[in-house]
Amino acid sequence: MIILNGGSSSGKSGIVRCLQAVLPDPWLAFGCDSFVDALPAAMQAGQEGIDIAADGTVSVGAGFRELEAAWTEGIVTMARAGARIVVDDVFLGGTASQQRWQRALGDLPALWVGVRCDSAVAAGREIARGDRIGGMAAAQAEAVHRGVVYDLEVDTTRTESLECARTIAARIG
Amino acid sequence: MIILNGGSSSGKSGIVRCLQAVLPDPWLAFGCDSFVDALPAAMQAGQEGIDIAADGTVSVGAGFRELEAAWTEGIVTMARAGARIVVDDVFLGGTASQQRWQRALGDLPALWVGVRCDSAVAAGREIARGDRIGGMAAAQAEAVHRGVVYDLEVDTTRTESLECARTIAARIG
Amino acid sequence: MIILNGGSSSGKSGIVRCLQAVLPDPWLAFGCDSFVDALPAAMQAGQEGIDIAADGTVSVGAGFRELEAAWTEGIVTMARAGARIVVDDVFLGGTASQQRWQRALGDLPALWVGVRCDSAVAAGREIARGDRIGGMAAAQAEAVHRGVVYDLEVDTTRTESLECARTIAARIG
Amino acid sequence: MIILNGGSSSGKSGIVRCLQAVLPDPWLAFGCDSFVDALPAAMQAGQEGIDIAADGTVSVGAGFRELEAAWTEGIVTMARAGARIVVDDVFLGGTASQQRWQRALGDLPALWVGVRCDSAVAAGREIARGDRIGGMAAAQAEAVHRGVVYDLEVDTTRTESLECARTIAARIG
Repeated sequence: MIILNGGSSSGKSGIVRCLQAVLPDPWLAFGCDSFVDALPAAMQAGQEGIDIAADGTVSVGAGFRELEAAWTEGIVTMARAGARIVVDDVFLGGTASQQRWQRALGDLPALWVGVRCDSAVAAGREIARGDRIGGMAAAQAEAVHRGVVYDLEVDTTRTESLECARTIAARIG
Repeated sequence: MIILNGGSSSGKSGIVRCLQAVLPDPWLAFGCDSFVDALPAAMQAGQEGIDIAADGTVSVGAGFRELEAAWTEGIVTMARAGARIVVDDVFLGGTASQQRWQRALGDLPALWVGVRCDSAVAAGREIARGDRIGGMAAAQAEAVHRGVVYDLEVDTTRTESLECARTIAARIG
Repeated sequence: MIILNGGSSSGKSGIVRCLQAVLPDPWLAFGCDSFVDALPAAMQAGQEGIDIAADGTVSVGAGFRELEAAWTEGIVTMARAGARIVVDDVFLGGTASQQRWQRALGDLPALWVGVRCDSAVAAGREIARGDRIGGMAAAQAEAVHRGVVYDLEVDTTRTESLECARTIAARIG
Repeated sequence: MIILNGGSSSGKSGIVRCLQAVLPDPWLAFGCDSFVDALPAAMQAGQEGIDIAADGTVSVGAGFRELEAAWTEGIVTMARAGARIVVDDVFLGGTASQQRWQRALGDLPALWVGVRCDSAVAAGREIARGDRIGGMAAAQAEAVHRGVVYDLEVDTTRTESLECARTIAARIG
């Protein structure tokens, strides 16, 4: 199992797709985006779910956290059942978010990868993506890495997704 | 856990979204579409993965089946961990597909829902969705229900998604 | 040129895709969705652009109206240049919206089609589509038809998109 | 009017969205992607329309060319009617593609921008985007610029979309 953590617009999704292309075996990709897609529409933009303020700050409710915990256990089960899994997440809680995964993983090994991107560059890429509400990239660029321990860090500021993926893939297998 | 089975363009996704809206608790939605999205791009259109012939016939490879089995176990784990889960699937294998879920479920209760739609109507809705390759709706309309046992069946041919969802929701809670 | 007018979730897009499939010649499809996609992200959710209130009421600014007028002229030019064009629009201004198109059309013939859908049914389909903000379907179901004159009206409440498209296609060529 | 030309995965769309964000006035964005979206589904993957070979080579039919010519005239009309327009295109025909726009523009001024990207880097970004059929980026990287004359060229190989957009914006107004 590979777990990528990085802020919004840091380039996680691109790295994940490149990893799926360069790794010789098939890997399943999950992440916070696919989790949010699984939520009821009302929770995607509401009080019990995920809330994105006008400045890009994200807060999540208790209902969100409960479902997320169950989802995390399920993803780990897929890995235990033999599937190769790459997850991209945004550790809004920093250390606490990593511990949530570690508790679910138990003795299952995981490769922890930090995906860094200069805050200003990530903010520019957020504009290039056409996100209607800006500010998430800048708000998360540093915060999501606080206290998190990695096996490997990549930086997309000046390195292409494919090259980052190759660096990560070299640590697998 | 609620498991919906029906052919392509039978209206499963619309019913799922309505279920998420009308059920009082939050339910997570997963299905074959989200599973396919998790696959490597090469498997989404390739030999080891899913293959859609020009006439809309779908065949899947061994690599696909292995990952799907692991995914199924993970989804069931999410339900065991306390999340309410609604799954929409296309039982290409009929009875065998249902048994795959039953083995993973064990003693976990599930509501089995058949989503039927007249073949010609489903084929028309496939055109209305703008799918580039047609034929899946007609090919699957009857085949996916062969030998499958349901607690409840809905028919979207003349019933709106929201009404189907209300019928299903009435059987929950 | 075919111009469809109907409220949100009345089924215009599905009819357009079916029209493109059943008409023997190739038709280009444009509409308010593709126009909004062409706007800067800031106008898609802002003061000078389009504003969707929590109850689904839509209001548009002066900047929006100016660009829309230029866009309308461009679409008509495409038709004059020989392209077959089908447009789906939401006449938020009722008669005034139709007159805007009529002025741009000049002597170019157009088939005016009203797409009706029972307000409650459209509201249910809005839920089935998973729109995060609801209410547009109900708010627009009647309002957009006020004072508008049609060559033909279809009602998607109980008629499939493909059948509506065939009715419209029968009036062409 | 601003016309960007560059190969697939060269970064045109990101630059367009940044241009819409940094330019003080609202600009409408159109391009080959929005044109293809307007085509019938059958032409998006068929003989009279656009055909993408397994190696990423793109060929278009006569029906495609006729509709494209009408579309081009319509886009120019929008600009004449007062809308600020930015177009991103892939000049599969090189010089001939530029001449097509020049004929439609007549005396309307346009800023011609070449969007370059190193072929290997563009191919890597194609993988990062998760395109199912690869090869377009490499096939088009050089070919689309053959014989085309620009007012300005940007290179996304090592320059962010936002910075490219600022360079272009500095030439406007």
